[in-house]
Amino acid sequence: MSGDAETDPQTAIDAVTNDQDERVYEHSAGDEREGIPFVGAGPGDPRLLTVAGRELLADADLVVHAGSLVNSELLAEYCVDAETVSSIGKDLEELIPLMRDAYERGETVVRLHSGDPAIYGAALEQMDALEHEGVPTYIVPGVTSAFAASATLRTQLTLNEVANHVAFTRPQGKTLDEDEDHISEFVGMGDVTTCIYLGTHAVSETMDRLLDDGHDPETPVAAVYHASWPDEDVVEGTIETIGEKLEAAGYRASAMVVIGDAVGGEEYERSFLYGEWANRSSDESADSTGEADD
Amino acid sequence: MSGDAETDPQTAIDAVTNDQDERVYEHSAGDEREGIPFVGAGPGDPRLLTVAGRELLADADLVVHAGSLVNSELLAEYCVDAETVSSIGKDLEELIPLMRDAYERGETVVRLHSGDPAIYGAALEQMDALEHEGVPTYIVPGVTSAFAASATLRTQLTLNEVANHVAFTRPQGKTLDEDEDHISEFVGMGDVTTCIYLGTHAVSETMDRLLDDGHDPETPVAAVYHASWPDEDVVEGTIETIGEKLEAAGYRASAMVVIGDAVGGEEYERSFLYGEWANRSSDESADSTGEADD
Repeated sequence: MSGDAETDPQTAIDAVTNDQDERVYEHSAGDEREGIPFVGAGPGDPRLLTVAGRELLADADLVVHAGSLVNSELLAEYCVDAETVSSIGKDLEELIPLMRDAYERGETVVRLHSGDPAIYGAALEQMDALEHEGVPTYIVPGVTSAFAASATLRTQLTLNEVANHVAFTRPQGKTLDEDEDHISEFVGMGDVTTCIYLGTHAVSETMDRLLDDGHDPETPVAAVYHASWPDEDVVEGTIETIGEKLEAAGYRASAMVVIGDAVGGEEYERSFLYGEWANRSSDESADSTGEADD
Repeated sequence: MSGDAETDPQTAIDAVTNDQDERVYEHSAGDEREGIPFVGAGPGDPRLLTVAGRELLADADLVVHAGSLVNSELLAEYCVDAETVSSIGKDLEELIPLMRDAYERGETVVRLHSGDPAIYGAALEQMDALEHEGVPTYIVPGVTSAFAASATLRTQLTLNEVANHVAFTRPQGKTLDEDEDHISEFVGMGDVTTCIYLGTHAVSETMDRLLDDGHDPETPVAAVYHASWPDEDVVEGTIETIGEKLEAAGYRASAMVVIGDAVGGEEYERSFLYGEWANRSSDESADSTGEADD
């Protein structure tokens, strides 16, 4: 509990990682607990926030949110009594003391990330820095925008005999080197639904690389702009056409780009999960991660 | 609106796919609308259901749910007035007329899948069969168990300089051929967090194949049993040790298995999303899918 605003956040990160944290074993995801929750706001629509997230926002005195990445309707509807602060343009050296000081004054603080905090968020570095300052933190998961996109497209990201796997990925650019860009490998597997985050500005270049790598130009691609927001829009095309279509539509940001046959409504086979299968007592039908239905 | 209970569901699926559906453009994910919603129940904890899901359950007359895959506490807490029916052991030929007839009687019907319906669910085949019977349907997304697992593990599935991508996958078995099993390819990419659904019963075999393929035996692996449920449990190990540990713990189903350095709390680099980066007006920092924070 140093209270030292001068602590270097990278030092805090390096100090915290590799420690065994008993809370991993003591708590379940979703538990109510002490500290600052890092809440996934979901894809945009206030109704797609979790019950836990809504309760936490209703009780909050201070909500530090992801600015324009979080639908302002959600803040207006749920953050009735809270001071709301956008984190946009603020670095860790500003955000951490802001949250720490409010928490130490006894205020109820919520950190609101868009989507789910585990997917292309930057929650952990803030959590580690706060923990270093003596402020407990935890994650409340949320609905990621790929799931809002698939709901809008009326499809599943996995689809029997069409798409057996899903990849969440981002294209090469300032953050990712060329050799860290796996989009072509995912598409090349043939039965993966590839969901591109943070890539709207680079769709044409990404698709050109896929064409250069010899992928089928007719592979279906859909781009869902602002999935679940009031101004949600869908642009459907193929590897060959989506870049031009998206440019014509004028979107340079905030679209989820989904590649694969699951997008195009390819014919699929009825799942083994029903019918004879459901009435058998096999190992596999009995197994579940709380996901595959029935 | 045939009302013909004898319709073959596979015929209905083949008839519906490849039609253009105007609702893709007319509605946003999260919208209230007519028909039977296919609701993602989330990972287990009732508090991790969406606000929309909770409202739909509260208004329902009939809830067809995924049996033991949905936490019974959630049904008890939210389905106050509804008749609840488990879909376990029922095939499409039984489920479709059950939901159709209730809907046509004017009842409010909800189909409750575990997790998010887009991930290893079997929602679409039921939706297509119902649509063929004249009953409108739509998807309400949910939190998938991998996000509850990462919240429990206090980590992100993507982590700067550690894990740039995420794969949702399942191992070979009765549903998937050997050549459709991409787990070794995902792990081989080195910067992918691999989340295995439906694979608890086959963890030892899966890990043996990874060892045979020459992957680092020390690669961190965590298994989160019943993520977010009251009996949630965490087993941590490596590619070499997790199989034995999970067998010792006695779990043969319902665990999310997560492979990769993001699991082990490897040291990561502060994101470019903060600091100097946040104060620049680059293309990339301005881009978002409603996910990457700030």
